[in-house]
Amino acid sequence: MFVLKSLKKISVIGLGLLGSSVTLSVSRALSNVACIGYSHRESTRQKAREMGVVDVVCDDICESVKESDIVILATPIFTFEDIFAQIAPALKPGCIVTDVGSTKVLPHRWARNIFKDNAVYVGSHPIAGSEKRGLEYARDDLLVGANCIITEDEYTDAAAANLLGEFWSALGCYIKRMTPAVHDRIFGRVSHLPHLTAAALINATSHDDIVFAGKGFIDTTRVASGPANIWTDILLANGENSTSGIDELISELEKIKQAIKQGDEPGLAKLLDNAREKRAELIKEKLANREII
Amino acid sequence: MFVLKSLKKISVIGLGLLGSSVTLSVSRALSNVACIGYSHRESTRQKAREMGVVDVVCDDICESVKESDIVILATPIFTFEDIFAQIAPALKPGCIVTDVGSTKVLPHRWARNIFKDNAVYVGSHPIAGSEKRGLEYARDDLLVGANCIITEDEYTDAAAANLLGEFWSALGCYIKRMTPAVHDRIFGRVSHLPHLTAAALINATSHDDIVFAGKGFIDTTRVASGPANIWTDILLANGENSTSGIDELISELEKIKQAIKQGDEPGLAKLLDNAREKRAELIKEKLANREII
Repeated sequence: MFVLKSLKKISVIGLGLLGSSVTLSVSRALSNVACIGYSHRESTRQKAREMGVVDVVCDDICESVKESDIVILATPIFTFEDIFAQIAPALKPGCIVTDVGSTKVLPHRWARNIFKDNAVYVGSHPIAGSEKRGLEYARDDLLVGANCIITEDEYTDAAAANLLGEFWSALGCYIKRMTPAVHDRIFGRVSHLPHLTAAALINATSHDDIVFAGKGFIDTTRVASGPANIWTDILLANGENSTSGIDELISELEKIKQAIKQGDEPGLAKLLDNAREKRAELIKEKLANREII
Repeated sequence: MFVLKSLKKISVIGLGLLGSSVTLSVSRALSNVACIGYSHRESTRQKAREMGVVDVVCDDICESVKESDIVILATPIFTFEDIFAQIAPALKPGCIVTDVGSTKVLPHRWARNIFKDNAVYVGSHPIAGSEKRGLEYARDDLLVGANCIITEDEYTDAAAANLLGEFWSALGCYIKRMTPAVHDRIFGRVSHLPHLTAAALINATSHDDIVFAGKGFIDTTRVASGPANIWTDILLANGENSTSGIDELISELEKIKQAIKQGDEPGLAKLLDNAREKRAELIKEKLANREII
């Protein structure tokens, strides 16, 4: 396996907002590394060429991964299994395959079944993105200051996980390592649940009423403007954590409902104040870590 | 009754963020009008004097409303009934009493029972504020471009409602008029439900997991940092609309849960896409109206 200094070539499959931001970040931070890109859409390949988000755009997915040291999938989660199978024969021995998907248990399972000795898989989840989509919104600083979770289980090559951590660090990420199961539990709660809740809140509000929405409603539901197909995949790929999150949220909503019904002022105040305090601690910590400004 | 041009004196009871922003806005936009302020807290009165957010700070609530043309309550909703009773004998005949509370059915009911011929009550709800609190965050442009709902029912003096509309317009608000019942239904859905949902989301997330929260979680839960006592009052004062909102939200969450459990990709995508589209329309309209930029 290579060391970061000898990294020569990376490939990104999927040239949306996040995939293109990865290639732009590599061009900025690791300027000697060649970036190869592939998208299954001719129109996206065309745009990627025009905007120069990669050094070379390939029309063939196997061609795009040849001789690469790191291959990064930035496509919807449920495409990974097929893509792993397609590219497996074309990979250079020792190539690290990763992805930027928002769930990690399934990608690890698929990779274990498909890659034998031809490649090593490590999961990545850079916590960066936007409700926008498309390479026109790509930015070479999108990953700067972002957390990037590296996932590894008992089958993961530790040296590859180290190297991949160095790679994301070089692009400006803070690295955290955990198992795919822990990852999916945590992000089921702090990311997937807020997303589906935002959608449910909008769906529970009539067209007549929604025009009176103020800044609070608009902020609370911002994430629901994310691409529906990507989020459908995420929720289905993290089904058990998503549904158990819904159950716990409903149980918290029921507590608030009971306090209102019973006119239980101290009880209701406590529920709201617990939330306020917990969020204040979170913001304090994020500010201290300079994760938000 | 006066016309806006002859307005001489207003009183604001409660000198928090919103109350002080009203007085600062009056000083900016209606500079000939005297602003009298009252707070039940000595420390707040002291701060209000130091910061000059009103022309005169009174230590006595009845003193503060004497000779005023408009008296505005900017205190928690459940203090209104007592304050109405306290100030009623001190009001100038024809004085318009209003408030900036977030629910309107109860204030109208209390006012009808308390004010006989000595004053006229009209409800106001300027849709402005912040998760911050306290007069140190007051701004003289907080109301500029904000919607202000004027509420009136069959007992409301229409001339007073017109005048009060002109007053808020002069401070920069867009005026909408509706009954208190319609107001509380709408804001139960677009404001109170998002607030309690944000609190429930935080309460459903453990301390261990919440540290991994990203921008999505932070935005989705921003409103939950609002003052717990104010929000407790709002939810209790709008109890039926709040609990029916919770029921509808739970029903929408259950739809998403069923779609995930059944692996119903098109069904789930439709639920998320409906929300995405509805929000896109909302944002488009808010941008067109320059309510957001």
